Amino acid sequence: MSLERWQLQAQKGRDILQNSIPKQWLLPADRLPPVSQKSVVEFPRESGLLSERELKITDMSATALVAEMSKGNMTAEEVVVAFLKRSVLGHQLLNFATEFMADEAIARAKELDEYYRRTGRLVGPLHGVPISVKEHLSFKNRTCNTGYVAWVDKVATEDALLIQLLGKAGAVFHVRTNQPQSLMHLCCSNNITGTTVNPYNRALTPGGSSGGEGASMGFRCAPLGIGTDIGGSIRCPAAFCGAYGFRPSTLRNPGTGIKVASSGQETIRGVVGPMASRSVEDLELFQRAVLEQEPWDHETSLMPVPWKTVPPTRNMTVAIMWDDGWVRPHPPITRALGYAKEKLAAAGVKVVDWEPYKHKHGWEVISALYYPDAGAKQRELMRESGEPARPLTEWALSYSRPSPLSHAETWELQEQREIFKDEYNALLKRRGVDFILSPTYPAAAAVMGESQYWNYTAIWNLADLPSAVFPSGLTVDPKLDVLSEQDKKYIPRDEIDEREWLKYEGPERYEGAPVGLQIAGRHCKDEETLMAAKVVEEIMKGEKKDSKL
Amino acid sequence: MSLERWQLQAQKGRDILQNSIPKQWLLPADRLPPVSQKSVVEFPRESGLLSERELKITDMSATALVAEMSKGNMTAEEVVVAFLKRSVLGHQLLNFATEFMADEAIARAKELDEYYRRTGRLVGPLHGVPISVKEHLSFKNRTCNTGYVAWVDKVATEDALLIQLLGKAGAVFHVRTNQPQSLMHLCCSNNITGTTVNPYNRALTPGGSSGGEGASMGFRCAPLGIGTDIGGSIRCPAAFCGAYGFRPSTLRNPGTGIKVASSGQETIRGVVGPMASRSVEDLELFQRAVLEQEPWDHETSLMPVPWKTVPPTRNMTVAIMWDDGWVRPHPPITRALGYAKEKLAAAGVKVVDWEPYKHKHGWEVISALYYPDAGAKQRELMRESGEPARPLTEWALSYSRPSPLSHAETWELQEQREIFKDEYNALLKRRGVDFILSPTYPAAAAVMGESQYWNYTAIWNLADLPSAVFPSGLTVDPKLDVLSEQDKKYIPRDEIDEREWLKYEGPERYEGAPVGLQIAGRHCKDEETLMAAKVVEEIMKGEKKDSKL
Repeated sequence: MSLERWQLQAQKGRDILQNSIPKQWLLPADRLPPVSQKSVVEFPRESGLLSERELKITDMSATALVAEMSKGNMTAEEVVVAFLKRSVLGHQLLNFATEFMADEAIARAKELDEYYRRTGRLVGPLHGVPISVKEHLSFKNRTCNTGYVAWVDKVATEDALLIQLLGKAGAVFHVRTNQPQSLMHLCCSNNITGTTVNPYNRALTPGGSSGGEGASMGFRCAPLGIGTDIGGSIRCPAAFCGAYGFRPSTLRNPGTGIKVASSGQETIRGVVGPMASRSVEDLELFQRAVLEQEPWDHETSLMPVPWKTVPPTRNMTVAIMWDDGWVRPHPPITRALGYAKEKLAAAGVKVVDWEPYKHKHGWEVISALYYPDAGAKQRELMRESGEPARPLTEWALSYSRPSPLSHAETWELQEQREIFKDEYNALLKRRGVDFILSPTYPAAAAVMGESQYWNYTAIWNLADLPSAVFPSGLTVDPKLDVLSEQDKKYIPRDEIDEREWLKYEGPERYEGAPVGLQIAGRHCKDEETLMAAKVVEEIMKGEKKDSKL
Repeated sequence: MSLERWQLQAQKGRDILQNSIPKQWLLPADRLPPVSQKSVVEFPRESGLLSERELKITDMSATALVAEMSKGNMTAEEVVVAFLKRSVLGHQLLNFATEFMADEAIARAKELDEYYRRTGRLVGPLHGVPISVKEHLSFKNRTCNTGYVAWVDKVATEDALLIQLLGKAGAVFHVRTNQPQSLMHLCCSNNITGTTVNPYNRALTPGGSSGGEGASMGFRCAPLGIGTDIGGSIRCPAAFCGAYGFRPSTLRNPGTGIKVASSGQETIRGVVGPMASRSVEDLELFQRAVLEQEPWDHETSLMPVPWKTVPPTRNMTVAIMWDDGWVRPHPPITRALGYAKEKLAAAGVKVVDWEPYKHKHGWEVISALYYPDAGAKQRELMRESGEPARPLTEWALSYSRPSPLSHAETWELQEQREIFKDEYNALLKRRGVDFILSPTYPAAAAVMGESQYWNYTAIWNLADLPSAVFPSGLTVDPKLDVLSEQDKKYIPRDEIDEREWLKYEGPERYEGAPVGLQIAGRHCKDEETLMAAKVVEEIMKGEKKDSKL
């Protein structure tokens, strides 16, 4: 059987990946867990590949690693080697990488160590922190395909601005990660390097579109990662993989050099933001390191707003959105929100219920604005190589109106977008609510290929509320999360609600999935939102319960 | 001869204006200067309408007026009455108003005086300051026509957000001012209230599109005014009328409730900003009063950036752009720049020459982005009433491509816009230049109907550089500004350069026109730009020459 042209082209992308894998750390197939084994999160310890010290290193947060390196207790080199080994293992189990950059990463780590030896100082706030990077951020002299076969051999001429800034802050980039075709799935499959799976349950998706990053964070292939988000693409992978993710306000983090199909489109703006495997604190570390370099002075569309320090407090009003009024969340999500309510109230946080505001209308606006050209650009790129559209690409393209929007229609929708933003922010103020705690997605994690409902996350893209995801500490529980008699009698509001509700045949289908919650803050209150995520998580985990926050 | 439907409709707009004029202050026609008299700037004193005290009041800056009111030396009522009288006179001479709001203004002033009597304090930083307002800013329960006959009876349901904020700061709105059809002339004519003329020479235009404001400032009908600017519409009227104007960075001042034909269009964003009759300081007073009310918390697309205080300094590098490389400025402009260079250098400011960067390319980008719909929305509005397009409306519409841009074309141009912005800002940094001092327009002021070249101002809209206009202190001089032998031999670069150059038949054509200069700062350096405008103006006028700035 002869291969089609696009398959030959796609092979180039796979070759880049294969050639980049540091072979010395590959585990023979017979030492890997069986394909049928769902959860692999415990495998790093079982594998024998990592030393005790490496296991300890890869369990640490970026903040903790930097602290150790600042005291001379660890070298950047051993840190990146530990994460590289874990990444190679993770890739064998999860197929999350598109390219390893081991030699450069180790060389850079050695430079950092040399700098530290010479000066006794760190080069910057991210000194020696390994960061995994979603593939569509450009690296100079490397290909950047954005999940399109047509672009597998397109070489970037410069590092993305964000990469430059993080690099100056001391970050070490060791692995680039997978993304879906078109970047518009909340799953992670493309025709080049295939499908990435969830470390907690390999029958589940790690989410998308920053799905490689989700897997990387969930398996701890790096303490920090970089994702992008136009409808949930940072937050869903973070939630599905038991990790942390932050969607900053638009025009805060620099997007220069992040390759997308519809470059120059501004109807809905994507954002780039941090993901973390261990803590909210690391998300903040990332943001501060970027913004203290004043990226707005290079990328002039950004807001010239420095990152500020917001002290933690429990003196806040958190509203819980149990349901968005359209699609009912699955039982594990509702249980996690109930648990949050109980713990927060007990900790003295004011907790109220959030009545959602026009979320269905919001979806009509944002979904029409994703593809004002009726997806022409995406289809053109697929046609260019001849690659077939993946099912979830067709799904996302189906959001678009049948034919391109006229300018008048585009302007009308943009006006609706601005009205929605202004009204949502005014509503938060009027109701005296500081933060909205909500599901990230109707399910704890989607079954592979089933990630069809975006609106728990996309609504905050439209309202442009900063929003963070953190693990609730709960996972889908075969005993606690069975459908109650009442659940079984639930009459869905419409066919979309029904579609999502019926996916929950029972907890077994989502075995082992962590439940991530989403917290959104008021407009432009990025710093406050991360503070709240940290405080809420600590309260839910019972940490620091005696501290006088 | 029977009137056409649009003429009957337009009459409604004229009726609103006529009915609003406070008749007690109208001067009989026989006491007005002859129509042939060009300059009317001295007429307020000659008219006998204003008392000495009223002449003094109307000669003061907003800052000085507030200071007097804070000491109880003046009442808000006498201040607004003085400016109302001057406005009525100005309107008789210049046709600059679309509606007077005398009763409300006086009532508001009385409230302010009562507040001051009761508390001994001012209500806010603009306590009792009369502000004239370009018509397309909405006032609740008043019509808002934006220069279109189709809209003459459209009533606004709310004050524009900026009006609300200025009102809270104590401003008193006494007159609304004229604008051209489509808002896209650098002149000021529409089919409703007609044509506004320049107080320094009534054969010249006051500029546009904030032309009513230009006349208002030039004639001192208010110490402060409000204009909008998408290609020079604040700065040209300020320059043509010997006044001050500021184009802030986009997304700094609130635009909610400012009515435009293509609402929701974002390809090029207009801005709203202050104009002033007396000083740069007043521009800053306005900006501070608005931004200290955190408009971004209402209009969420705005940058959450407070107004900051920038102390004056001469420790700056000012680059002089003598020519934009496309259209040669007329002799009076070049003379004013030469004078600036001499004075600045003598004052110890570092002065260099500015080599323009791709201004023609910039114009190609911005002009295509003004009308991505090929002007369909504008034509639709004119068709709605049946009003004919004014010649300069057709002129501006001719900037558009023949047919609507595709989404791909729009995105490509938007990308070019961002690249241009980033590159221009990077260039300023690389060259070590803080500010660019330049012409505002090729001529000191355009002859009525001739304002065809936008790119001395539009280029800063594209680069999104904050830019201020201030009077150089020079006016077109019949002796100094004659064409030299060398001038007469000038070979224009192309037909556009030729068109503009040939308009300068000699200084007589521009008799009495003040020469305003434009100063642009780096991206988002709004405060610094106003500081520089103030320092440069002071140096040029020889004021405070001994102060140790």
